[in-house]
Amino acid sequence: MTPPPLSKARAKLIRSLQAAKHRQAQQQFVVEGAKSVLELLASDFHTDLLVATADFLGQNHETLVRFTGETLEASAELLASLGNLETNDTALAIARMKPNDPVTIPPDEWALVLDDIRDPGNLGTILRIADWYDITTIIASPDTVDRYNPKVLQASMGSFTRVTVYYTDLPPLLSACTTPVFGAFLDGENIHQVNFGPGGLIVIGNEAHGISAPVQSHITRRITIPRFGRAESLNAAVATAVICDTLRNRPPAGRKSP
Amino acid sequence: MTPPPLSKARAKLIRSLQAAKHRQAQQQFVVEGAKSVLELLASDFHTDLLVATADFLGQNHETLVRFTGETLEASAELLASLGNLETNDTALAIARMKPNDPVTIPPDEWALVLDDIRDPGNLGTILRIADWYDITTIIASPDTVDRYNPKVLQASMGSFTRVTVYYTDLPPLLSACTTPVFGAFLDGENIHQVNFGPGGLIVIGNEAHGISAPVQSHITRRITIPRFGRAESLNAAVATAVICDTLRNRPPAGRKSP
Repeated sequence: MTPPPLSKARAKLIRSLQAAKHRQAQQQFVVEGAKSVLELLASDFHTDLLVATADFLGQNHETLVRFTGETLEASAELLASLGNLETNDTALAIARMKPNDPVTIPPDEWALVLDDIRDPGNLGTILRIADWYDITTIIASPDTVDRYNPKVLQASMGSFTRVTVYYTDLPPLLSACTTPVFGAFLDGENIHQVNFGPGGLIVIGNEAHGISAPVQSHITRRITIPRFGRAESLNAAVATAVICDTLRNRPPAGRKSP
Repeated sequence: MTPPPLSKARAKLIRSLQAAKHRQAQQQFVVEGAKSVLELLASDFHTDLLVATADFLGQNHETLVRFTGETLEASAELLASLGNLETNDTALAIARMKPNDPVTIPPDEWALVLDDIRDPGNLGTILRIADWYDITTIIASPDTVDRYNPKVLQASMGSFTRVTVYYTDLPPLLSACTTPVFGAFLDGENIHQVNFGPGGLIVIGNEAHGISAPVQSHITRRITIPRFGRAESLNAAVATAVICDTLRNRPPAGRKSP
């Protein structure tokens, strides 16, 4: 049975979800691109609608027989006109946002805390890094970019399906925290000499201003990536990766087998 | 003496340099933003023209007395209309490209080799990473994005002034190379167990396709960043940073004091 085509009203709704206010109102978001859509369908997100080319629907028949949402067929040209990202002429999906439920971090696990990360590429890349290093929880300040922003989803390369992001005011959360709170600064302890221990929070600051003063007062361990050359700083996502790689690979504490 | 204002013809020339073909024809490029412009003026690039607000010119008077190029004054509004990047209403400059001269890598130094890095944000971030880890030379395939692309310059945060990029066909260069050629793959030796030695080349592959077959045949050491979670891969710039951080900090070989 051939799926029905996409109506103009539906196309308009999909395009509207590029804007944060419409996503918030609908509690839905758009996932673009074959890889991301397949990751979405394999995840615990609820997908309401799949729009894809006949080719995609044919090639992924086995995955799609388990999909209970609505499926519509569209031409590559129409698909390309629906998204705002780089060329996507294969598939997109509309899924439901998850509730912003408070998270609990067990004392032997790691979580990232993002203090006002504004660039969607950075947040997406940080989701991908967290997923690579098996850090499944991110706590983000209310001003951190929306995790459902299309550029965040794109840069996360599917990792948005496996990493929880909880938005909350950081100081109250940090003041109630009993595990170590590490913060990345330019003048802290060399990360390669730090005993990270079995778990805690790693705070990453804003791209331009670093960690804000109210959050700084809750940092229990100031850490630094040693600099060898002359750049003033590292990109926020890059710093996150170097810290995660170090804490996961530094024997013996903090170590976990890959 | 107040600098003269910017003419319409000059504004048109500046805007034209956003396109690679015009940069190539003029052998000039545009640097936008106060920080990048100040880094440019402090570098060994030849700057032909500075366009800035009266405020910028006043605040940087001491730096500018040594500047021998042409200086023009423009309003914040006009400056904002000249660039294609995020808000820049302070300063921009036109500088001369450097010749694409062959580079020599001493056997006890490191260089990065980029096999077709296409995303300007990635190249800029890699320049910043190289600068942080005191790697001053990058060798790039001819299809790697232009180092003078405005988004590359922006993402490099001034590091474009301190890192040389030499564009050349990679296989002949690698076949003539006598130092180790490390390549980042998903199935190589754990970077935390590699003896990097005192120097060599680190090859980073294309964002989507990794290291191309003709380049792969010249890799002498396949290395891997250990994965702990489920992301399929890391972003190219992120992988570069983790590798550079490891080779600079792994005692005893490859170590260099920060």
